[in-house]
Amino acid sequence: MPRTRIHNLSISLDGFATGEPQSAEAPFGHAGERLHEWMFRTRFWATGASSDHAARGSAGVDDAFAERHSVGVGAEIMGANKFGPPGWQDDPDWTGWWGPNPPFHTPTFVLTHRPRAAMEMEGGTVFHFLDASPVDALEVAGAAAGGQDVRIGGGPTVVRDFLAAGLVDHMHLVQVPIVLGRGVRLWDGLEGLEEAYDVEAVSSPSGVTHLTFARRAVSSPSA
Amino acid sequence: MPRTRIHNLSISLDGFATGEPQSAEAPFGHAGERLHEWMFRTRFWATGASSDHAARGSAGVDDAFAERHSVGVGAEIMGANKFGPPGWQDDPDWTGWWGPNPPFHTPTFVLTHRPRAAMEMEGGTVFHFLDASPVDALEVAGAAAGGQDVRIGGGPTVVRDFLAAGLVDHMHLVQVPIVLGRGVRLWDGLEGLEEAYDVEAVSSPSGVTHLTFARRAVSSPSA
Repeated sequence: MPRTRIHNLSISLDGFATGEPQSAEAPFGHAGERLHEWMFRTRFWATGASSDHAARGSAGVDDAFAERHSVGVGAEIMGANKFGPPGWQDDPDWTGWWGPNPPFHTPTFVLTHRPRAAMEMEGGTVFHFLDASPVDALEVAGAAAGGQDVRIGGGPTVVRDFLAAGLVDHMHLVQVPIVLGRGVRLWDGLEGLEEAYDVEAVSSPSGVTHLTFARRAVSSPSA
Repeated sequence: MPRTRIHNLSISLDGFATGEPQSAEAPFGHAGERLHEWMFRTRFWATGASSDHAARGSAGVDDAFAERHSVGVGAEIMGANKFGPPGWQDDPDWTGWWGPNPPFHTPTFVLTHRPRAAMEMEGGTVFHFLDASPVDALEVAGAAAGGQDVRIGGGPTVVRDFLAAGLVDHMHLVQVPIVLGRGVRLWDGLEGLEEAYDVEAVSSPSGVTHLTFARRAVSSPSA
């Protein structure tokens, strides 16, 4: 069975995965780049998706977690708010934030109530637009993933929907030591989430804390 | 100058320092003991305030943080919700949760809009009842602390009030890997709190993460 995974989702101490207001100039609102500075400093980020192992960027625990983002992933599902700023649906030429060669390199499903025709980008990314529930989107993405896993790419609203529906097997969060005060909160409506997961925390010398939620194996009643 | 300190304040991943509803039977509401199990397993807790160094309880990072609770503290300030369940002000015989010998052993100031006469307990704890702002309460407690530090003992509402007023020099939080979903949140209204502090995070083998906020030294403009 392919797994459903979340990677590198960065949140503030108060649980916000983005600030506000989100715009073309400020995709994360008043959070700016503060939630992701830890990632920009990693070798994973510095070398992009290439196999160029130049000695740039940190190579420790932050990098080890960051680079799991793409390994074994055959499709991504993202929310409309990740694909573009508010109102991108009104711009027929909008193709996402990432230029001609987006960093997904797989079929990528954008959840929106206003779907459009698929877009084939360079590097293997094909954007598909779906107006679907989490469970239905996962069925479509799973079929497209070629036996590999499906990544839920965010933003926080979509992640929360998939968590609430019990559809996430693995979640990696990065807690950044800032208090954002406002934005979109990850945790709302997820009381007791830890009951279905083994949770592990490890702090990094960079100041962030990595949290891993691994879904517990369901043991056989006769075992 | 005496410092104002917070120790062993436990919060869930979603930032709640207590569950709900709070009552005489459940001081932390639906959170039960889950926020404090890490502390119950320490040597600090197992040996109480005595100097009995029996080899009971964990002696690692959780214990190292826990035992700083009392060192160098000459007075505590606590909120009404820490002193008793809702309505304790209507019970003239209520003397707190802790029996005849409370674990404070110093003057202890309870903030309440319905003050009563002071109570001298065993072991050095004297409860005083104050209807005062954070800054005024701190002045009174500081004078009673005999040159030692003042601990802000919680609950979260009082801690938040002192943080918002810029009155806290040192804060130790313990993040427990559970999602409580409801209760009293620590972080509300504290956007940008990290700007005044050096923040450090360290995860423990027990699963919790210790967060330390140490107020930055104000450097001299001519330095």
